[in-house]
Amino acid sequence: MKLLEKTINKIDSLDKNSMEEAQNRLDNLTKPPGSLGKLEDVAVQLAGITGEMMPDIKKKVHILFAADHGVVAEGVSAFSQEVTTAMVRNFLNGGAAINVLANQVGAEVKIVDIGVKDELEADDLIVNKIKAGTDNFAQGPAMSRSEAKSSIEVGIKIAKQAIDQGADLLATGEMGIGNTTASSAIVAAITDFSLAEVVGYGTGIDETGLENKKEVIAKALELNQPDSKDGVDVLAKVGGLEIGGMAGVMLAAAAEKTPVIVDGLISGAAALIAYQLEPNVVNYLIPSHNSVEPGHSKVYQRLGLEAMLDLEMRLGEGTGAVLAMELVESATRVIKEMATFDELTINN
Amino acid sequence: MKLLEKTINKIDSLDKNSMEEAQNRLDNLTKPPGSLGKLEDVAVQLAGITGEMMPDIKKKVHILFAADHGVVAEGVSAFSQEVTTAMVRNFLNGGAAINVLANQVGAEVKIVDIGVKDELEADDLIVNKIKAGTDNFAQGPAMSRSEAKSSIEVGIKIAKQAIDQGADLLATGEMGIGNTTASSAIVAAITDFSLAEVVGYGTGIDETGLENKKEVIAKALELNQPDSKDGVDVLAKVGGLEIGGMAGVMLAAAAEKTPVIVDGLISGAAALIAYQLEPNVVNYLIPSHNSVEPGHSKVYQRLGLEAMLDLEMRLGEGTGAVLAMELVESATRVIKEMATFDELTINN
Repeated sequence: MKLLEKTINKIDSLDKNSMEEAQNRLDNLTKPPGSLGKLEDVAVQLAGITGEMMPDIKKKVHILFAADHGVVAEGVSAFSQEVTTAMVRNFLNGGAAINVLANQVGAEVKIVDIGVKDELEADDLIVNKIKAGTDNFAQGPAMSRSEAKSSIEVGIKIAKQAIDQGADLLATGEMGIGNTTASSAIVAAITDFSLAEVVGYGTGIDETGLENKKEVIAKALELNQPDSKDGVDVLAKVGGLEIGGMAGVMLAAAAEKTPVIVDGLISGAAALIAYQLEPNVVNYLIPSHNSVEPGHSKVYQRLGLEAMLDLEMRLGEGTGAVLAMELVESATRVIKEMATFDELTINN
Repeated sequence: MKLLEKTINKIDSLDKNSMEEAQNRLDNLTKPPGSLGKLEDVAVQLAGITGEMMPDIKKKVHILFAADHGVVAEGVSAFSQEVTTAMVRNFLNGGAAINVLANQVGAEVKIVDIGVKDELEADDLIVNKIKAGTDNFAQGPAMSRSEAKSSIEVGIKIAKQAIDQGADLLATGEMGIGNTTASSAIVAAITDFSLAEVVGYGTGIDETGLENKKEVIAKALELNQPDSKDGVDVLAKVGGLEIGGMAGVMLAAAAEKTPVIVDGLISGAAALIAYQLEPNVVNYLIPSHNSVEPGHSKVYQRLGLEAMLDLEMRLGEGTGAVLAMELVESATRVIKEMATFDELTINN
């Protein structure tokens, strides 16, 4: 059996016993029941994922995939394709937002070239290039079905390795000029929302640019006819290599009973792809922030996720996801370290 | 001149030059302009508050005031008054949510008895009791004008001392059974929102309890006729001692050019009191989370604040405020540690 199928088959439902134990403990802590809101939900979810009432988080790893998009030839982005390469170098030099925020929360960052157009080489760069950028999906599929599968399998391998090396909380992020276009196309293909509802300004195009972006996506969906039921088909026809990589991370995390944080629109599109492949994956996903990109809230709505952070961000890289790591850790500390009402009575 | 008046007189507007410098630097960092959303807004605000383009945060202090409320005699709370005392002991033992979350973000917690009914004594407890709980404001004013002023001045003194000892980021929190009733009364007295819009379930009353709570507040406002223009009058008539303390912390922080984080409804009511005393205080306030209490969003709306965290919490203690400390620190790191586009070109 192939890695993708094997991974999907391994994804199980959550451990209900541990969730019940966690809920009982939360209800006995010295606070009104439920008053810590989503932090309590996360604590219960983590119990269900790990099968432990009070799991520790000892090693946080953020996996960032970079890739280029042929569709930038259609003028859909405010930035040129070279920026993808320049930003990967910036990540490797530690100067990007994701480096700073990951430092702040104490997370390791893995940078993966899964499809950057330029040749890149560096000690800290994981090179797993499936192809040198996708093809222009306004003129045909972004990639072959086999390339799409391979991109997911790269994500699975890297996530599995990180987990084997001790990672117990993963986050997903990306860099790829043009990738809000691919992601909006995925969201429109998989959900019932219209292009008007899901397409946004990305890194900063204007009204004319927005109209063009919508037209390009409409044309691509018409031309390629992605099969919304088939995640690999959607990814191949209008997706991106970094999106496949992130979908792979999510599937591997679920298979290995490890929580994984979804970032903004692009990471959300990856979550949709993973969900089409195996709906149970959603139980292992932890939402992070509300992106400014309109398609993002549609993804969360479709997956039944609710953002914890509302920072009006639209940067990508996984910046919202790493900030949410802190909240996930807070949830684990609350259930473990707070006193129960029984202890309160005994102590006083 | 008295401490309150002296503090108010010292509150200045923000440093526009530093804000402009910060904005320019943010716009040159390796990201689309504005793409870090509220983190960028906070970085600019911190520059305006401190007069430095890139201030450090070296010492975070959370100040938590505890006090009792005579109005609990009207059956407005799901918990009995003794819980205030029990929870103060819990804070001192380190077993409450605020202890756990403050540890997580590396903040020191100061616990102040500004009006608990029971006598409390402990090494780590700051005792500055103005009176042993407020009077029942359904039958007359909660406290005298002079007691209200004193409660604010206690907050000023404690905040000033913390700042003198190096605190460069403050957060506000509280414990006081009955204090969502006092806070809702303050919000209704100062804003134009109706009781239906501002009164909520607090720590967990039912529908009947909610109706009673609204009636008690309506009666109290009718009986006491607080002067909405006069923050001290509103505080004296329908407020609480811990609310005065927090208002004092906010005023002192503003006077000392130190950022201070607003928590949920009760801390928000304190912000309204401080705002009525000196509108410029709002420039020094940093919002944190969206509380489930309906009155909270009305406070933020009135003050022009927008929450960064959306966790459906309703615990108080300052739990949302300390979680936001991490986001404020992230903002200071972003502006300081990210590479600029110039550096990117030079390095590659």
